[in-house]
Order: sequence, then structure tokens, then C-alpha cells
Amino acid sequence: MTLKHIGEFGFIRKISSGCLVRPESVIKGIGDDAAAFQTDPELVSLVTTDLLVEGIHFLRDSISGFDLGYKSLAVNLSDIAAMGGTAREAFVSIAIPDNCPLAYLEDIYAGMKKLAARFEVNILGGDTTGSRTDLIINVAVYGTVAQNELLSRDAAQAGDIIFSTGFLGDSKAGLHLIINGIAADSEDLKQLLQAHLLPQPQLREGRFLAQQAGLHAAIDTSDGLGADLGHIVEASHVGARICADKIPVSKNLESFCARFNFDPVDFAVSGGEDYTLLCTVAPDTADKVAADFCKTFQKPLFPIGEISDSGRLELIRPDGRRLNVSASGWNHFKE
Amino acid sequence: MTLKHIGEFGFIRKISSGCLVRPESVIKGIGDDAAAFQTDPELVSLVTTDLLVEGIHFLRDSISGFDLGYKSLAVNLSDIAAMGGTAREAFVSIAIPDNCPLAYLEDIYAGMKKLAARFEVNILGGDTTGSRTDLIINVAVYGTVAQNELLSRDAAQAGDIIFSTGFLGDSKAGLHLIINGIAADSEDLKQLLQAHLLPQPQLREGRFLAQQAGLHAAIDTSDGLGADLGHIVEASHVGARICADKIPVSKNLESFCARFNFDPVDFAVSGGEDYTLLCTVAPDTADKVAADFCKTFQKPLFPIGEISDSGRLELIRPDGRRLNVSASGWNHFKE
Repeated sequence: MTLKHIGEFGFIRKISSGCLVRPESVIKGIGDDAAAFQTDPELVSLVTTDLLVEGIHFLRDSISGFDLGYKSLAVNLSDIAAMGGTAREAFVSIAIPDNCPLAYLEDIYAGMKKLAARFEVNILGGDTTGSRTDLIINVAVYGTVAQNELLSRDAAQAGDIIFSTGFLGDSKAGLHLIINGIAADSEDLKQLLQAHLLPQPQLREGRFLAQQAGLHAAIDTSDGLGADLGHIVEASHVGARICADKIPVSKNLESFCARFNFDPVDFAVSGGEDYTLLCTVAPDTADKVAADFCKTFQKPLFPIGEISDSGRLELIRPDGRRLNVSASGWNHFKE
Repeated sequence: MTLKHIGEFGFIRKISSGCLVRPESVIKGIGDDAAAFQTDPELVSLVTTDLLVEGIHFLRDSISGFDLGYKSLAVNLSDIAAMGGTAREAFVSIAIPDNCPLAYLEDIYAGMKKLAARFEVNILGGDTTGSRTDLIINVAVYGTVAQNELLSRDAAQAGDIIFSTGFLGDSKAGLHLIINGIAADSEDLKQLLQAHLLPQPQLREGRFLAQQAGLHAAIDTSDGLGADLGHIVEASHVGARICADKIPVSKNLESFCARFNFDPVDFAVSGGEDYTLLCTVAPDTADKVAADFCKTFQKPLFPIGEISDSGRLELIRPDGRRLNVSASGWNHFKE
């Protein structure tokens, strides 16, 4: 039997048992954006880690070293953001095949350092080794959050308003351009490409949300709106309704979809790697949270639906049709 | 230009600049066994990470999943031990090729869990993904140590006595058996194989040493006595003399060397992966530290030489000849 038979999430369930031998310090273990554990009475430590493998997550000849380094750190910072935390220290393990030019490696670190400096994250250690064929990068990030500000995906309540901190679907459109070798010959296509290659981890937005009254659950959109909201629904034992005509779609994505004949809502729901934050907020404070967010960041906090108790994730089309959305998410192995 | 031209340590030097943007929280950055940073006024956080790549660090058909999992955690626990710390949480990233049987993967986690349970370490998260050909495992471990008990490799002083917490060279002998397909047909060969496959991280010994008066520098013997003492010499700006006839060599290694015609001292000095701890202790407390160690662990703390101010690492043969030992260490790239 191989992983194809049970899939990534089946595998994680299988290996999770027996992993906690000292549960008293654990706040969130396997299954949230980052692990959370107690190091002192008030401060929670957060650790997240992501492994990027050539040929699976990137092709060396179609991504610059800079973009690869930037993104490998960005995805981890986004996980810390989703927990409401402050990212502090990064650890980079890299396995390098013989044919990888030094200049490409230096570009990887330049991309990481650029993003790290923006969020005051130290690159504090790691491991450097060889590889037979594939370039491999593992980044682990350590962050902290006050105990009473920790966000998680398992705290949504029926009636909560669901928000996104930014547009959805842009990254998938950028990926479509790369995969199909379509030149980014206009400003809007360039921005879609940028959204895919240089995602902006929403650490400041995450800190803001963590401090709001009535803020219940949060997650980052790494797997796509459908899958990530599905994670909230599953972990919180609730349901959710999202309104198709409220999903925030950028002008860039609209013109892309008009030109290439796609449905922007499909891109927003099924696309991954936007790295916005989704959050759910108690209905009585939702308006205030949205207004304060807008004042603080000069951009809207988009309401896209609400948490229900149905156990299902439903998409309501403008014509009133209700569609069930799959909550399975990316799955690296299952066919 | 590729890595072969500048080597692993040249590469690390090259990428290290610009990595610290918030130096005020950093106690030890790139270059010690683990990174050490401040999270609260008294407690120091430790993080270490190791990347194991198939074909470089292991061959899937010559190591069991159990041993691979055990070792991938053990090498990280040893780094925490070398800093005097307590290991707390482990994070496992794994990239899995299609042809890897589920049973092998479960064995990897069984090996990790066995060792983790022994030292009360939680396996708290990680990342699971695919790989085209090679199995890849990155383990990161979080630990803590009181500020005034942190050990490091840069604190040795001329006159210090150098100790090892255990025998040296056994692991290299075990590796020799594997590489040359020699069957472990006797108890002593089996134990050498065991020393290589299932190294014992010396976390309890590290905690003991961290609490001793006059304890200056420490490191684990991952690269070999010569290389690791070389790291202390370089980081502390000192020199060292080791006495060949004081280097602790097990009966198993002696009989292996007699049978296969090797010099046990060569194995002890140039062999890596023993994962004992080396430490340097002020001469006025050295005897007491060694006696208390022996009382606590029912095994000797072996004195092997002393720190000098020569800037060189010298091996003194029984006949009085002084040999310079290379301090270059394992180097994953340079030819």
C-alpha cells in the first residue's frame, strides 16, 4: 500500500496517534496553520514549517531564485499570520544538487532576506546539504502570540460573519499564465503573475484581527476559499454559506476571465495560494471590526457569507441556487 | 560557479550577511549547534533543524524505516543536548516519492515516536508532501534552557580540560560494516552497527554539564572529534592538544580494528556521528565535574586533553610526536 490509497490527510491521521507524550504544554498540535505551545504563562510559541520540492512545488527553470526564496518564506509567514502571531525567527534547510548555480542560490536568499527584513524576521539558522537531482527547501518559522490573542480554525460559531482580508483567485490566474506559457503582456496580467509569485503574507492584518472583540476563527487561504473554509467548518463542527456575488474578485481577475473565458467565482473558490486571511466574527461586532479594519489598512475587509450549523459548505449563486462546495482541499497524494 | 568552488562553509558565510534584522533577541545565530534566542527574560529558546536526503544521507534499501526515523530525530536532539537544553517539540517535514510503501513510512514515525517518548518530546506538527524520486525528511526541534545554563562552542579558555561523555569512533566502524557489506556476525560488531544506526542523544548528560561550575564550551560529536574540537578551537579563538592514548575507545572498536587492521585512534578522530558531547572545563573544577558525572551516570567522563592558546589542534601520540589535526570538518560540497 502506498500513500495514493489513503491520501495526505489519511496519512496525517494515521501517524498522528502517539505524537503527544507531554500534552500539558500543547495548545494546538497537528492540524492548524501552525503548532501552538506554551513556553511561559502568557506567551504562546508558534512554529510552522513548509517543504518545497523541485518538480512538485516549482520548476527551477520557470521561477527565479528570488521569487522561490521569497515564496518559501511567505507561505510560512502566512501561517503565523493566520494564528494572529508575530513572526520572529526563520530557519532554512536547503538541499542543493550539483548543477545548481551559486548565483541562483544567492538569489533564493536575497528573496528570503527581502521579505524577512520587511517583517523584522531573523534568518537564524538551518541546514545546508547536497541533493542528487532536486533542489529542496524547508523553511520553519518561529513566532509568538499572547495567549488571549491566539487565533485558530476551530472556534467558528453559527451566526458568525465570514470575512476575507483581500481578493481571491488572483494567484490561480497567475499560475494559469505560467502553466500555459501565456506572456503577461498587460499590466493586469503582470499583477496576477505577481499575486502568484510574490504573495503578501498578512501579518499586520492578522495581528489586528487577533485583537478584535468577537473574532472567533481564522485561517489563511493557502488551499483555496472552498478548501480553507472547509477546514474551518470541519474543525469548528459548523457549516457555512458563502454568497457568490460577495466573493471579492479583483478587476485584474475579471478582465483575465473575460479574456480567457473563465468564471471568476470558480477561480476564487477553487484557487489556492492567495494567502489572504479568512476570519469569522460574531455578528454583533462584525460591522465595527470591518470599519476599523478599513480605517487601519485603507482597504476593505470583505464579508462573504456566514457560519451556519448545517455541517455543509454551501455556495449561494446570484439566482438563489445553492451548491455544495467540496471541503477536501489540496491533497498531495490521493488520485 | 557552483557550490563545489566555495564549499558548504564558504556558502554559509556568503549567505549569512543580512540575515539578522532584529539582532537584539539573538543569543546564538548561524554557526552553533542550535540557534538560541530570547523569548522571555530568563528562558532561552533553542531551535535546530536537519535535512536528510535519500542518496546523500541514507539509502532507502539499506536502512529500515524505524532506524531512519529514529536517527533523523536523534541528530536534532543531540544538537539541543550540546546547548545544555531540554528538547520539547519536534516538527517533521517529509516529501514522499510514489514508490515508497506506507509500511516504510509508518516505521519512520515509529522510530521517531520511540525516541521522542523517551525524552518527553512532542511531535507537534510538520508538512507532508510529494517528491519525484528521493525520500526527504527535515526535522526541526524546539528546546529551552535557562539563560545562565546555555552552553556554546565559543567559550573555551586556555587551560580548560577537554572531556568526552562517551566512546568515539564506534559509529564510523558501524558505517564501515554497512558500506562494505560486512555481516555483523558477533556481538561486538552488532553493537558498532547499533552505535551508527541508533545513536543515543545525550540530553541528560547535557543538562548535567550545563549546571556545573567551570563548564565553559560544549559541542556534540556529529562531524568527528577532530572536526568538532576544531569548531570549538575556531569559535573560541584558542588551540587544543589531545592525547592519543586518552581518547576513549570501546572494546568493540578495539576488536574491530584488530580484526580489520585499522587504527582505533584514526577512527575516533576522523569518524563522525558518535553524538557524544565534548566539553571544556576550568582546571580547578574539572576533577569534581568528572567525579560527579561518574556518580550521576555510572559511567566515566573521559578527559582527553586540554585547551591551549596555540590556535592549532594537535594530537600527541604516545611516542611524543605532535600531529596537526585538520579542523575542516565534514564538508558536503567541496572536493
